[in-house]
Amino acid sequence: MRRHLLLAATAALIASPAIAQDGTTARIIDEGLNHSQVMVTAQGLTDVIGPRLTNSPAMRKAEGWTQDRFREWGLKNIHKEGFPFGRGWSIERSSVRMVTPRAIQLTAIPIAWTPATTGALTAPVIVAPIGKIRDFDKWRGQLRGKVVMLTAPGTGDEPDEAPFRRLSGEDLGKLDQYQLPHNDPEATDRRLKRLDFQQKLDAFLKAEGAVAFATISYRDGKLLHGEGYMFGVGETPSMPGVQIAAEDYRRLARLAKIGPAPTLEIVSDVRFDDSDVNAYNVFAEIPGTDPKAGYVMAGAHLDSWVAGDGAADNAAGSAMVMEAARILAATGVRPKRTIRFALWAGEEQGILGSMAYVEKHLATRGAGTALGNGQGMQRYYGFANRWPVTPLPGYRDLTAYFNIDNGSGKLRGLYAENNPAAVPLLRDWLSPFATMGAGTVVVRPTGGTDHVFMQSVGVPGFQFIQDPLDYGSRIHHSSADTFDHLKGDDMRQGATVLAGVLLAAADSDKVLPRPPLPTKPAVTDPFAYSDGDDD
Amino acid sequence: MRRHLLLAATAALIASPAIAQDGTTARIIDEGLNHSQVMVTAQGLTDVIGPRLTNSPAMRKAEGWTQDRFREWGLKNIHKEGFPFGRGWSIERSSVRMVTPRAIQLTAIPIAWTPATTGALTAPVIVAPIGKIRDFDKWRGQLRGKVVMLTAPGTGDEPDEAPFRRLSGEDLGKLDQYQLPHNDPEATDRRLKRLDFQQKLDAFLKAEGAVAFATISYRDGKLLHGEGYMFGVGETPSMPGVQIAAEDYRRLARLAKIGPAPTLEIVSDVRFDDSDVNAYNVFAEIPGTDPKAGYVMAGAHLDSWVAGDGAADNAAGSAMVMEAARILAATGVRPKRTIRFALWAGEEQGILGSMAYVEKHLATRGAGTALGNGQGMQRYYGFANRWPVTPLPGYRDLTAYFNIDNGSGKLRGLYAENNPAAVPLLRDWLSPFATMGAGTVVVRPTGGTDHVFMQSVGVPGFQFIQDPLDYGSRIHHSSADTFDHLKGDDMRQGATVLAGVLLAAADSDKVLPRPPLPTKPAVTDPFAYSDGDDD
Repeated sequence: MRRHLLLAATAALIASPAIAQDGTTARIIDEGLNHSQVMVTAQGLTDVIGPRLTNSPAMRKAEGWTQDRFREWGLKNIHKEGFPFGRGWSIERSSVRMVTPRAIQLTAIPIAWTPATTGALTAPVIVAPIGKIRDFDKWRGQLRGKVVMLTAPGTGDEPDEAPFRRLSGEDLGKLDQYQLPHNDPEATDRRLKRLDFQQKLDAFLKAEGAVAFATISYRDGKLLHGEGYMFGVGETPSMPGVQIAAEDYRRLARLAKIGPAPTLEIVSDVRFDDSDVNAYNVFAEIPGTDPKAGYVMAGAHLDSWVAGDGAADNAAGSAMVMEAARILAATGVRPKRTIRFALWAGEEQGILGSMAYVEKHLATRGAGTALGNGQGMQRYYGFANRWPVTPLPGYRDLTAYFNIDNGSGKLRGLYAENNPAAVPLLRDWLSPFATMGAGTVVVRPTGGTDHVFMQSVGVPGFQFIQDPLDYGSRIHHSSADTFDHLKGDDMRQGATVLAGVLLAAADSDKVLPRPPLPTKPAVTDPFAYSDGDDD
Repeated sequence: MRRHLLLAATAALIASPAIAQDGTTARIIDEGLNHSQVMVTAQGLTDVIGPRLTNSPAMRKAEGWTQDRFREWGLKNIHKEGFPFGRGWSIERSSVRMVTPRAIQLTAIPIAWTPATTGALTAPVIVAPIGKIRDFDKWRGQLRGKVVMLTAPGTGDEPDEAPFRRLSGEDLGKLDQYQLPHNDPEATDRRLKRLDFQQKLDAFLKAEGAVAFATISYRDGKLLHGEGYMFGVGETPSMPGVQIAAEDYRRLARLAKIGPAPTLEIVSDVRFDDSDVNAYNVFAEIPGTDPKAGYVMAGAHLDSWVAGDGAADNAAGSAMVMEAARILAATGVRPKRTIRFALWAGEEQGILGSMAYVEKHLATRGAGTALGNGQGMQRYYGFANRWPVTPLPGYRDLTAYFNIDNGSGKLRGLYAENNPAAVPLLRDWLSPFATMGAGTVVVRPTGGTDHVFMQSVGVPGFQFIQDPLDYGSRIHHSSADTFDHLKGDDMRQGATVLAGVLLAAADSDKVLPRPPLPTKPAVTDPFAYSDGDDD
């Protein structure tokens, strides 16, 4: 810590405003590429702390550990902000075996937020694919005492594309397409119905006397994921649930079809933690010299699922954001605008941490806030669609937000998120890093992570383009999401580029043009057909 | 059963020698493609019986079940032939957890033929890569009470080729290359030294007081394999051994490097079966009409490793060989030569079943037989290199052998195994199936399975070219080698083509030209350099 402060002080002495741009970029590159700590940070989050399910004991450790690192590196205004979430949950031990007709140790994982078994639970399976409420009647009276296999088994995949890849110039070109918006007002209703269905299914299984449920892993090759979305206190599932590797699940289903139902022995030693129902976002800053100039922000979600160590998703992004903070602190920059670093919680359950930030600091929607609406995913969809948007006093202060959440692949540029007017300035900020492969700006929007609610209220939030590597093919949310699949060279580049872009945005004379404040629902395409009722 | 016999009888009535060729081929195709049982057979071997480690209880079941099927289909001379092998072994239950510094249920499998733990074994790891005898000194005195991690951890792979593929015409063209033989008389010595090393390593670990050993899986993405090669009675390893998924193994190694050694809790409930030290090859026949014409044979190994269900390796080949037998029996053919069907044991431990067949029926080597030489792999290498070859009375009777052992991909043709003189006749036999994609004959040799010892004594043994699918990338020997990754359409085609080729070979007026009887060691390239001492 002392060394970094000293470096920062030295840097402050030699940096004059006139030569800041060039000299600072060179120092950022030197600090980021020759003195990188990004993989040490990533290892702390993954190998040492492990998977960081929101509100789990490991996530609590990560909340503290990340603040300690920011403190060590000399960041300012380090703090966390809470928002209501639900229960913590973690796996202590688990085992799923087929015990008849023959003994096989299966590959399986408890589904997040399902309750523990009491010791070993032994029961026959029944293959009862249930995807809609109308399926309930088909299985009524057949589930008592059974492990209910809820998914249709399908068959083996034929992966005919390389799992690991980088973006060519041609690939990048294809991303540069404005996407015509299609507004579907029923989408929210349908999604809310899906969530409602999960709760009705749980109640149905309980009423029918099922003893556990099982789902199939959605990736072949013995990978597991184990995501679960019912995490509110008092809202967790009634019975143990396991996700079983595709190969093992299909074997169970085939055996059940040709002979007596196989018997499973399930041990799920999992633990709830209700000591604090709040989840916490973590923040740190490099203060700006002009208190009226607002702030820029970089963020990544710190939370993860539990099948792996949440390495590519998203210790990688968290470590790059933290490393950008370290680089800028070590370089002793004094930007015009404050640079804020955010590590979000609850992203995996519905982008909840950044939504809480938006609601607290940027804008509210509808008559009130979405935070009291019960389950996270329902809050998500409620927030996404409730009009009108009411800006808060801090709405204009945030002039640019940059998000990293696409694995450990190096940064190739930025998505302008369907805001063509933002392209020239983004391209300018990236220009010093074009020769590192990060110079591309494409107009295409992206979704599903922590910039979306900022975008949805008209705040300029962007996501970086990253080389995909094997993120989509096998790592994302999977049991193989471990430190050894992170690419150190890519992450050094990523943290360095992020530091440079943040500083450029913080010092920029121009601010990014914003889309209009969304104050009314968009018009729905009158010729669109609904894709039908989901239940 | 009755229906097939009836069909056979009907077929015999209508088939005259003059029109046999065309009519029979059409009936083989109809039976093989429209009335296939190949996937039912494959499911019996995989889902129902499961992995068939030689001499395990499941392999014993498979020995009986396959003979029952041959009987049901009307095959003749159904029997098994024993040869000395070693112990059976199977997994009842297993679990490997990291218990400190945090709790993780690891993905791991007991290594074949390692002994059980007594309940749960809890001990710290030590990363001690040991690959040569000279490494022993480095670790002496440090292993007591430890789980010794014997492999260097390496880092994550970057798979940049599609896992699942089929052969294009260009791919097939590349296979058609004569391979210049390179004879390396020291190769056997080096390999025997490797085996000797395994025994010395086991003794070293025992003497040092290690409590278990662990190796890394050689495929990333949480796949397991668990092969083991010390299976002789009295020769199995001293202590429990587990193979740990690459991601989990590397995490252990990284944690051991930055802090206190992680502690593992290992439960390995495995069972030896010493009730019969003999392994058994299974045979069935369609008798030939000319007792002096000899026989042709198709074979596949019935045994497997245990991480999956031994589906692509090699229930697929076994089921195709069995289905070819069923097709030919159902078609009621009466070939000139006997057609023999062989299901080999002990292939995975050194091609031992087909070696035993060669020694009993075709040719011996050196002063005596190799069968008494202790461990299987040592027998393998002893047999492979001992001169001179002495033909047995049955040496000339076997006029062609066809092997299937490359997964469930459809047959694309035959490898002529460096015997260019055999190409025209093989091509002729395949010609009716060219439009099914199986018409290619390439000269290239292949190794590593049950035709090699026939080839090595000058008997014409060939392997089929097959579409690779995902056999090499993720299925071969892995925990994902299950029924759902078998391709039913491919296997129907394969069994049909095999039946047709067998019948053509059995009825052929010409016999395949043989390579010269190998009666002396080949000359070694005098300019070759040894690649050094292996210990």
